[in-house]
Amino acid sequence: MSPADSGVEPPPERTVAQNAQLALLLEVTGTPKPGNVDRAHDYDDLRFEHFVAGGVGARRGLDLAADGERLGRAFERAVAGMSQQRAGNTQFGALLVLVPLVRAAAEDDLSGRHAGDLAEATTVADAADFYRAFEHVDVAVDDPPEGMDALDVRRGAEAVPAIEDRGVTLYDVMTDSAEIDGIAREWTGEFDRSFDAAERLLELEGAVPDRTARVFLELLAAEPDTFVATQHDRETAERATERAAAALAGDADPWTLANEFVAEGINPGTTADLTAAALFVALERGLEI
Amino acid sequence: MSPADSGVEPPPERTVAQNAQLALLLEVTGTPKPGNVDRAHDYDDLRFEHFVAGGVGARRGLDLAADGERLGRAFERAVAGMSQQRAGNTQFGALLVLVPLVRAAAEDDLSGRHAGDLAEATTVADAADFYRAFEHVDVAVDDPPEGMDALDVRRGAEAVPAIEDRGVTLYDVMTDSAEIDGIAREWTGEFDRSFDAAERLLELEGAVPDRTARVFLELLAAEPDTFVATQHDRETAERATERAAAALAGDADPWTLANEFVAEGINPGTTADLTAAALFVALERGLEI
Repeated sequence: MSPADSGVEPPPERTVAQNAQLALLLEVTGTPKPGNVDRAHDYDDLRFEHFVAGGVGARRGLDLAADGERLGRAFERAVAGMSQQRAGNTQFGALLVLVPLVRAAAEDDLSGRHAGDLAEATTVADAADFYRAFEHVDVAVDDPPEGMDALDVRRGAEAVPAIEDRGVTLYDVMTDSAEIDGIAREWTGEFDRSFDAAERLLELEGAVPDRTARVFLELLAAEPDTFVATQHDRETAERATERAAAALAGDADPWTLANEFVAEGINPGTTADLTAAALFVALERGLEI
Repeated sequence: MSPADSGVEPPPERTVAQNAQLALLLEVTGTPKPGNVDRAHDYDDLRFEHFVAGGVGARRGLDLAADGERLGRAFERAVAGMSQQRAGNTQFGALLVLVPLVRAAAEDDLSGRHAGDLAEATTVADAADFYRAFEHVDVAVDDPPEGMDALDVRRGAEAVPAIEDRGVTLYDVMTDSAEIDGIAREWTGEFDRSFDAAERLLELEGAVPDRTARVFLELLAAEPDTFVATQHDRETAERATERAAAALAGDADPWTLANEFVAEGINPGTTADLTAAALFVALERGLEI
């Protein structure tokens, strides 16, 4: 019997889509993330297990993105799969920022420049897919600008004819929203916050969920969360950023801040989404668990 | 523009392999599970994120099991993928009990009888795969019986020639271990504890992680954990079961017991594995998250 007959095949490395899934699951695991669901905090109708199920269900859309499907379609399928749990919207924004990054990684060019090119190349069909994704979840959004009711994302699939008539691409949608939505800003800004935060994850030491909590706080301390601004208002979002900065500086306790934010319903969801994106890039760049 | 042009495809249902992955992730999420890693408890070198990464990495092996690969090979690939994190062995036993269940579900006959038939039909090649799986992890096992050193699982792939010479099937290995290993007992006993516990999960009310914690305690209160018996001794395992029964009866606090078990290094790993199996069956039978 030769050694080759009893040989053991090397373990498989995680695929790009697996790393994206792992990023979603590590993101919810990071604790404390003031205002977010984490290992120590839930909301009444939005709990840890919903994010776990969301991360499992999103996988088929992530596989589509890695395998070359158009980005809008991959995103819509990821959201559809994510939504197969009772809390509804857990990771809509995280999936939106991840999908171009997943494709860039699958094309062996995980850079802000290439992910930005992929974003810019999205089409009217991608925009139609994006609007269809809203059929699977309730997502907090502001009223559309004057005269734009036909393109209100809350119309979901009903808006598709108007999208097609007007020739609106998904990149157009992102451009229109970049001022008020941090993920749209990533799409139109070469994902710079995601990549910078990924470098922070790689620089820091210690257990990955602890680094995650730290980078979340750094992100929130640097920029007001656009989801908080939508759910509440600009002032609340700016104040939340000030409070995060205080915690980062050691003038407040992140655990106390986490309890306060949950009690006040301040949930920095956009910051969580960016944290997931950062984790994905870091995993692709060799972050070990 | 007809409605069909803007139509939205129904969300995908989770596949069998996705449900198995979700079961692993929900198992670690259940809290408190006295002595196990859960949302509120870690060990120094074995933490929540290791189980998350293990659950993500195991997926390709679970897909193989669902897709018709021989069970030993699917198991070995699942363990190889699971091991791609720094804690090593997180879910070896859970994967061992899951793989026949996954195949049974993929064949549209998720029953103890059919899973038992699949287990009984495993071959010498499956046994060789099983031994190869030990190359990826350190698993706590007792010394083999007198004269059986050639088949000591700690020999890993080196034992494959002896397995093949002696014509030992994977079912033979399980039969030999059924007295001392709760997962081997499931393989040779039509997975009865897994299926009974799944029915408990479906009967109970409340959030799934809370039901998970309850069913874990019920399992531990009913039978000493064979992993505890291996890591410590039979007496410690029996005493741990008595303590779990007290918590179940309301005479002790499960949270206190969780802290005590972790401090004492009492980790009912076999019970965790059965809980994962129960979650898989329950998910397949319609458990909603």
